[in-house]
Amino acid sequence: MSTPISGFSKLSKSQKISWLAENYFNDVQAGIRVLQQYWNSDQKLQQLHDEFIENTISNYYLPLGVAPNFAINDKMYAIPMAIEESSVVAAASNAAKFWLDKGGFKAKVIQSVKNGQVHLNFYGDSARLEAFFNEVKPTLLADCESITTNMRKRGGGILDLELRNKTQELAGYYQLHATFETLDAMGANFINSCLEQFASSLLREAAKSTLITEEDRLEVVMSILSNYVPECIVRAEVSCPVNELAQAGMSGQEFATKFARAVQIAQTEVRRAVTHNKGIMNGIDAVVLATGNDFRAVEAGVHAYASKDGHYRSLTHAAVSDGVFRFWIEIPLAIGTVGGLTKLHPLVKLCFEMLGNPGAKELMQIMAVAGLAQNFAALRSLTTTGIQKGHMKMHLMNILNQLEATPQEKEAAIEHFKANTVSHAAAVSFLESLRP
Amino acid sequence: MSTPISGFSKLSKSQKISWLAENYFNDVQAGIRVLQQYWNSDQKLQQLHDEFIENTISNYYLPLGVAPNFAINDKMYAIPMAIEESSVVAAASNAAKFWLDKGGFKAKVIQSVKNGQVHLNFYGDSARLEAFFNEVKPTLLADCESITTNMRKRGGGILDLELRNKTQELAGYYQLHATFETLDAMGANFINSCLEQFASSLLREAAKSTLITEEDRLEVVMSILSNYVPECIVRAEVSCPVNELAQAGMSGQEFATKFARAVQIAQTEVRRAVTHNKGIMNGIDAVVLATGNDFRAVEAGVHAYASKDGHYRSLTHAAVSDGVFRFWIEIPLAIGTVGGLTKLHPLVKLCFEMLGNPGAKELMQIMAVAGLAQNFAALRSLTTTGIQKGHMKMHLMNILNQLEATPQEKEAAIEHFKANTVSHAAAVSFLESLRP
Repeated sequence: MSTPISGFSKLSKSQKISWLAENYFNDVQAGIRVLQQYWNSDQKLQQLHDEFIENTISNYYLPLGVAPNFAINDKMYAIPMAIEESSVVAAASNAAKFWLDKGGFKAKVIQSVKNGQVHLNFYGDSARLEAFFNEVKPTLLADCESITTNMRKRGGGILDLELRNKTQELAGYYQLHATFETLDAMGANFINSCLEQFASSLLREAAKSTLITEEDRLEVVMSILSNYVPECIVRAEVSCPVNELAQAGMSGQEFATKFARAVQIAQTEVRRAVTHNKGIMNGIDAVVLATGNDFRAVEAGVHAYASKDGHYRSLTHAAVSDGVFRFWIEIPLAIGTVGGLTKLHPLVKLCFEMLGNPGAKELMQIMAVAGLAQNFAALRSLTTTGIQKGHMKMHLMNILNQLEATPQEKEAAIEHFKANTVSHAAAVSFLESLRP
Repeated sequence: MSTPISGFSKLSKSQKISWLAENYFNDVQAGIRVLQQYWNSDQKLQQLHDEFIENTISNYYLPLGVAPNFAINDKMYAIPMAIEESSVVAAASNAAKFWLDKGGFKAKVIQSVKNGQVHLNFYGDSARLEAFFNEVKPTLLADCESITTNMRKRGGGILDLELRNKTQELAGYYQLHATFETLDAMGANFINSCLEQFASSLLREAAKSTLITEEDRLEVVMSILSNYVPECIVRAEVSCPVNELAQAGMSGQEFATKFARAVQIAQTEVRRAVTHNKGIMNGIDAVVLATGNDFRAVEAGVHAYASKDGHYRSLTHAAVSDGVFRFWIEIPLAIGTVGGLTKLHPLVKLCFEMLGNPGAKELMQIMAVAGLAQNFAALRSLTTTGIQKGHMKMHLMNILNQLEATPQEKEAAIEHFKANTVSHAAAVSFLESLRP
């Protein structure tokens, strides 16, 4: 049993690694070698990455792949995707190609309002709190002016600030609900700074006001942006005549009907909806990561949105009518193209260049398309060949690497499994059959 | 406007990069240099990472950090975390230290059942389908025996298979609902293989059976595991006498009351709950990534679980009674310690070693603790100093790097901002004041 350590974060990187190795590694030298093997040889670059977070010991590699041939609003994109799951980039590329000669993807941002709250306790007469809020609202907004100067110059800033009475849901609970336009920034720091200023101004003014008494027990519980952003919505869509969907062994009508049924099931049944939406997020998160955005924020907002009517449902929708197949997604995405790591991580910068340096709204469209494409590819596999065939084919290389196959063995295995079902056991016996 | 490309996935890595660079990079040579700068100098290791997915062009670095001093069920852990957000590892470390002398974290797995469905259309008399299912169920299970051999040897396998009538929710919709124990494997491939076998056996038997007619239009829409796993649950908890929670300027009782109120607000208000749970996932996903698990699967299952009663709520709970403060989490986590990338990614292997090579149940506990710790740290900041102070302090280094501060300037800035509020603008003016 290792003993606790004090002042770990103050140690140098090599001291941290030594402590870790001595306390937790089976083979001290081998473990240290693995960590160092992943360091960048450019010390300045490595230091930059080390300083992103606390206690960095190495670089965790996620494969950075690219899915070409995306036509979005009549512009061609190659979409960078950082993701470890073997079939995601392949599926995205296939869907992009599929829709390329059918008009491609159309996407648009419907709304881009972000929000945050100062959460308050107040146990007095709500009419007095309302009167007080109306009196001090201009002061609260004015106190944020220095924080919002730059954002206002660019056309954004605080949109509105209102007092919300939530006492029906929880005794003594009120909010200052604020809305923001943060343009190309995700805006977390901006919004949190404004909210903390609102909170501190509110308490200062309350202390001076006769409308608020000690017995009211006015208290700021906390001030924080919301990752629930149902007013920050992007929509992406594909459509084509049903007959263009004809596949091996299926007419266009058969395919469209079965595909739409699969979406309907994901609208109805939570156990399917969760996996359905997980597949959508495979595509979206890969772009979120590659562009230096925060996938936890996006995930939370998207899945909560999926349950907004009290029943967790599919985020995509399909319709077949008048001989036309339509498939679309509408999701909340609060992301940024400035701030955070976007200009700091050299690969992120290059990913932005690859995308033509989009603003936040264009990036929202690209992400929504990546999600829709991923879902199309998944449902297409599921409703035709089944998911395992394609998935295991993509995963074959991982299995072969795990079995330490030689380049010659890999080649033979790839050939063999063109006609045979991939499984771990099947790969083992195939390699055994090759080996003397 | 670039033109589409055919056969992209068949090109060599350098051909792919050349095509990308010519079509999408502003400076072809500079862009290629950035990609190459992130390649590992060990070609064999690089090839391994390239083969994880399709169309890999480089390695996306996430910082791998470590949070020491976690006492979980009386065992000391240093938790590896792969995450780009500046304050997450620092917050985890602080929470670990805070609870270290208060008994640490307690965690246990409550249930570990996974599930998947064959989604069916059937438009005949449901009694006939039920009769048919009962007749063929043993055959369906027997047909999976070769797939489940290894899993059964280790004590897992298929737990049950049932027919579920979902026609109340959607006309003609039925499921084969299967449950599984997959032990240390996440089990996606195993479950999907079983489900596809069920589907194919079902159709084969239906063709032979007099119970099913052409008019019933029995059809397998799709067969797929569910990432909604409310029967795969882990619980983690901390508790201590209220008076041990006394902080700078706050009694233990004041802190506990305000903290519990913050949790209550997250139980009540979706805009707060989403961000609250996002913070929990900061901790969980960092461990999910470091251990080669699939964070999209975990995210989808967790957030859907947060909305299970029709209202999206906090995943953590707090209670203060009889002078004792308790804070706990109960979440679904379907993860694995074998299969996927777990044995393939050298850094993942080392992260497992760092954790003492846990099985899946122990890893579920570690992840739940990481989430609870993260949430504790976030709520503690929010209800005392506010989130921005700590967050911006952690983010200061990123701002300084973006402003290309020299080591001397960084040192001076860190000193200066010990007493002053960090903001991008404040960092700019401080550096300007230093520069001649």
